Order: sequence, then structure tokens, then C-alpha cells
Amino acid sequence: MDKKMNVTPWEVSGKIDYDKLIREFGIKPITNLPQAFMGNILFRRKIVFAHRDFEKIIDSIKNKKPFVMMTGLMPTGKFHLGHMILALQMAFYQKLGAKIYIAVADLEAYNARQKSLEELRKNAVDQYLLNYAALGLDLSKCDIYFQSDRSSNAKKSSAYYRLASNFSRYATFNEFKAIYGEITPGKMNASLLQAADMYHPQLPEFEDSIPTFIPVGIDQDPHIRIARDMANRDKDYKFIPIASTYHIFLPGLKGGGKMSSSDENSFIAMTDSQKEVEQKIRKYAFSGGKDTIEEHRKKGGNPDVDVSFQYLKMFFEPDDEKLRKIENDYRSGKLLTSELKEYLIKKINSFLSEHQKKRDLAKKQIEKFVFKA
Amino acid sequence: MDKKMNVTPWEVSGKIDYDKLIREFGIKPITNLPQAFMGNILFRRKIVFAHRDFEKIIDSIKNKKPFVMMTGLMPTGKFHLGHMILALQMAFYQKLGAKIYIAVADLEAYNARQKSLEELRKNAVDQYLLNYAALGLDLSKCDIYFQSDRSSNAKKSSAYYRLASNFSRYATFNEFKAIYGEITPGKMNASLLQAADMYHPQLPEFEDSIPTFIPVGIDQDPHIRIARDMANRDKDYKFIPIASTYHIFLPGLKGGGKMSSSDENSFIAMTDSQKEVEQKIRKYAFSGGKDTIEEHRKKGGNPDVDVSFQYLKMFFEPDDEKLRKIENDYRSGKLLTSELKEYLIKKINSFLSEHQKKRDLAKKQIEKFVFKA
Repeated sequence: MDKKMNVTPWEVSGKIDYDKLIREFGIKPITNLPQAFMGNILFRRKIVFAHRDFEKIIDSIKNKKPFVMMTGLMPTGKFHLGHMILALQMAFYQKLGAKIYIAVADLEAYNARQKSLEELRKNAVDQYLLNYAALGLDLSKCDIYFQSDRSSNAKKSSAYYRLASNFSRYATFNEFKAIYGEITPGKMNASLLQAADMYHPQLPEFEDSIPTFIPVGIDQDPHIRIARDMANRDKDYKFIPIASTYHIFLPGLKGGGKMSSSDENSFIAMTDSQKEVEQKIRKYAFSGGKDTIEEHRKKGGNPDVDVSFQYLKMFFEPDDEKLRKIENDYRSGKLLTSELKEYLIKKINSFLSEHQKKRDLAKKQIEKFVFKA
Repeated sequence: MDKKMNVTPWEVSGKIDYDKLIREFGIKPITNLPQAFMGNILFRRKIVFAHRDFEKIIDSIKNKKPFVMMTGLMPTGKFHLGHMILALQMAFYQKLGAKIYIAVADLEAYNARQKSLEELRKNAVDQYLLNYAALGLDLSKCDIYFQSDRSSNAKKSSAYYRLASNFSRYATFNEFKAIYGEITPGKMNASLLQAADMYHPQLPEFEDSIPTFIPVGIDQDPHIRIARDMANRDKDYKFIPIASTYHIFLPGLKGGGKMSSSDENSFIAMTDSQKEVEQKIRKYAFSGGKDTIEEHRKKGGNPDVDVSFQYLKMFFEPDDEKLRKIENDYRSGKLLTSELKEYLIKKINSFLSEHQKKRDLAKKQIEKFVFKA
């Protein structure tokens, strides 16, 4: 029997029922995207599958009006394939005209963990920003900042921190508790800062009134709901409620849940060697195939739960025709698990070898153009 | 029977037993001040009567080492005689070499009340800063700032707000509740900012490690205790525990408690006219005299509870000889309440007329030198 589904910012487990999440969270399936989105497999294959208030962002894109894509990163752990879903969207929306804001949640990470701000900042650059750049994001056009040091412009800095304080006036302990369970002053502070992250692009010191949206994994929705609630009650500003899109989870190597930095053998990191990729996929990648070749040939495999197939679908086989053939062959038993895995290994390693070159290039340029805002 | 003593940041009532407060709050009586303090009646007459860790400030003064006097103002209501105790100390310590930091608690006031930040800022300048200047404080040498906009230097701004966030990591809800009773996110945020106000002068972005003290009315001690507790647990910085001095309350006109902005007839404002002073003292000033002239002549009055005498003692009769004569004459019945009141009225009005001239002068200069930090 499947474990009961649990999807919160702190735990993702059980068999994920995305339709049920859509109903529970009060969000909507994504439909009728403009043609520009159909070239991107994340949208064409409904990896990004739901939204809240995304219509106004679509309007901005259609009418070539300014809009902001806001995102944040927790500067701990290694950047892995799971993070790529977001990074690819960042590059995509930037090309569509979005101003990209990236909050490095160093204060939140610092309050929660035992690392110094310096270590966290270094990790943000080495693991996250370099990979964003290698995945096509032009960092020089982004507003990238640390929560601990918002801007080199004091008016902007104060406006940002003032907003976090202001939200405290409109927050209640009960709503924090409803979302965070056991709440501490540190967690509350982090939540207020996070709401300021989401809404400060709309301040006059930044972009002024501007449609803003946040692409997230669906487990992150509680953070967005609490920020929307505070901003909605806040009579001191006239905020446009923040919009959001939701993507499904990239399953961890062992299947189920999501790829997680806390389990080395659940993820493939961007810095993994060809050898490591081979070993991880061969050893850990959960298979939808049958136990014996004979049985597999007879009954076929199940691509819907096969991790290797999912990785091909989400990133590594952009050709819809080829993907359909792989799916059909796997389902019919013509394609064996070992063959599917070798195909994926080749795809990932070819991608990573290219990616690592781009990463090295980015390294040479990064110091110049980050954190100048 | 006297009402039970209640001394908290939110209420001061009953007969104040300062010795008991010293024991309850774990502070010490002030003794052995250097000679320089004896020229100031606030110290000579023990209006400033207790302290915590003030020895290191005395050391700094004696050895001409740098030190900070930190204070804050709530930018609501009118500046009245009660505020003068603090303002006179600011001017005094500045001449002794203190760097003066003044936090305008506009975010705290804003979170608690229904005024705009603009109104609060205007009130801070019109009511507080102008009067500080008229009372001898050189504003151009002070670091005066709004909580909502710490500095025009972004490094400084971020360091200040980062400290408030950092303290949230070392705070517990239980200690907030112990001090504030019903705690809200807004109150907690204000308390964290206030702790940052007290400790940020010690940050490398400001004065770096430097002895800092706060002169307060004794009802404010809970704020200092909670900030000291957080700073003490905070392993990310090596703070010198903040020192403090405590002054007694200037009684309200009607006697008891303290002069309070919320009751027009309890205070004399710096902007009151000569006529208003006359009327307020004659009508409201609580008297330690007897009900009839005959009885007063026979039994004498009680200067210890007489509000007019207390005002002379705290501000308006700096001559110890004259004050002693007034005290003796009043106690013996030679001096009548009406005579004492008229003497005080003359003293206050002569002081205020001089003060209001200085205030007008300050007005012309103030825009130049405040809020440049």
C-alpha cells in the first residue's frame, strides 16, 4: 500500500496526487499558455502544471509589459538536478522579458543551521549562481542579493527591511503556527523576511507597482499563502497579490518524494563525475521494469514510476517523438531497464560535460557582475 | 492607604519605593561618582540614583576613552518637563566625551499606533530634537536615526537590521511573554529592533567594541534586561553587556506616578505659554501643604510629596542653599503653598522663555545637520 501523501515545505513523502494538491491548495491547472511556452518541455510536458493568478503575468508577456520573476535560494548543500527545474525557468522567463530577483536566504539558513554567513555566501555562489549562469541565466541582468545585506543603496536596503517590520504588524501568531507548527522567534523572523523578499520588488524604491510571480515546487505553497495573506491585510501599501506557478517534484534516484540534498544517493549533483553518474543510475535509479528479463519482455515495464524515464521526460530527451518511442518500447517490454539506464547515463553525461565547461566559463566572469545592486 | 506600587514600561502607579525597585531589578545604587558629576543637580541630588555596570563607563570617562550613550525616543506626543531629565543627561554626557546615539523608534510607534511614518518623523524633529538642541545637545555630533531608515550608508543599514534578525535566533517566546504579557508579532519585532538599537554601536560597521550605556527611567529596565539576555546568549558577536543608569520619575502635576503625555493636565510642555504654566501650577500642582493657612503655619507642609518643591529640586532651583531654605521654610510653615507655587511659576516661565528662544534658533539650524549619518 502507498504511504499516505505528505507535502509540506519540510517533508515530501507518499504517492503524490497532484490533482488533490490543486484542490487542497486552491490553485488552478495551467492551461492556454502562449505559443512561446510550447517550445519548453517544462511547460509542454506539464512539469510546471498549476498556478495562482498567473493570468496577469501572461498578460504582461503578451503585451510586452514589465514583470518580475522572484525566487530565492537556500545556500546550503549541493546544486543537483532537482534545482534545475527552477533554474531553467529563470533563464526562460528572463528571455521572455522578466526582471529576475534572486534572494539568497542567508539569514534564514543562518538562523536554522550552524554555518557562518561567509560559508553560506560562498556556497551560494559556488553551487547556485554558477549553475544558474551555466544553465543560461544572464546574472548581470538579475537583481541578486543576500537577505543579510540587501543592497549597496541604503534607501533600497531600508525599504526592504522596513517592509519585513511592517508585515509583522499584520501577522498573527496563529497563522504562523498553522503553517510552521512549533514557531520560534527565529522562524517568525525568517518568515517575515521571506514575505519581504516576495513583495519588495513592488516598492517605489525598487520597480514600483509591478506584477510579480514566483515559480516554486508545490511543497512551497504555504510560504506563498502566508505572504499573500499578510500583504492582503497590509493597508500601508497597495500590493498586487503575488502570482505563482507550481512544478512537480523531480523524484529522487530511489523513487518517490523528491530529490533531496540531505541524501547523497538520492541526487545527481552538477559536479558529479561521469563515473559517479554511471554508478548512481545503475545502482540506485528506481526501475519500473520487471524482476527478470523474461518477465519484462512478456509484461513490459512501467515508465510512470521509472525514475530513469522521468529524468528523460523532464530534462534529457527534448524530442517528443523519441520520448514517445522510448515510452512505448518500455511499456511493451521491447526496451529493457538496463538499456534505458544506459541511454539516460549517456544523455546525462553528455549534458554534464557540456554544463561543466559552461560552469568554468561562468566562474571567470561571476565576480564582476553579482552583488552590485 | 497607598495604592500598590506598579512599575512597568506601560504603567507607573502607587507609591514608588525606589529601594525596593533596586532590589527587585538587581541594580545598584550610584555611589562614588567623579567630581565632574557633582556640578550637575541630577547626580548631586540623586535624581539619577541607580545603575547596572556603569563602572566601565566611569572608567572610560576617567581615562578619556571613547564610549557611547545610547538612547531612544518614541516620536509621539508633546515634549514635556519629564523628558528633560533624559535630555539634560544627553547634553551632559556629550560634554564628557560620549558619542550620542539617538534612535527614533518610528517603526515601533508605527506598529503600535495609527500615525503615518511621515507624521511620526515630523513629530520627532519638532517635539524632541528641537528641544534636545535647545537644552544644549549638539545634534551635529550625534548619530540620530530612524529605525525605519537606519543610515545613508548601506553597509551600516544592513548591519543594523541583520543584528535584529540575528537576535531573533537567540530569543525565546517565553521571555517575551514574561515581559510583554500578550505578545504579538509586531511587539516581538519591535523588541528585536530595540535590542539592535542598544547593541549596534558595538558592531564593526559602527564604533566597534565600545562601552555603551543607556540612561533610562527605572520603569524601562525590562527592555534593557531582555536585550542583555539576548546579547549574552549571542555567540556570533562578542558584545560588552550594555550598562545603564536609572532616574526617578518626575511626578505628574497631580502628584504620584510620572508626568505622562497622555494626560494634558499632568504635564507642562516646552511649548506651554506663560499663562498655561500659571494656570496648570495653580490649579493642578499637588500640594504638600495643609488645608488652611492657619494649620499650615502651625504644622508646616511636606516638601517630599509637594510637586512644586519636587520640580524645584529636580530642575529649577540649582542653588543648594536656596533649595534647603525653601525646604526648611516649607516644612516649618513659614512658606505657604501659594508662595511656593508662585516661586516655581516664575522659575519655570523664566526658564521656558529662554528655552523657547533657543528652540527657535535651533529650528533654523536643524535641517542642516540631522539625519546625515
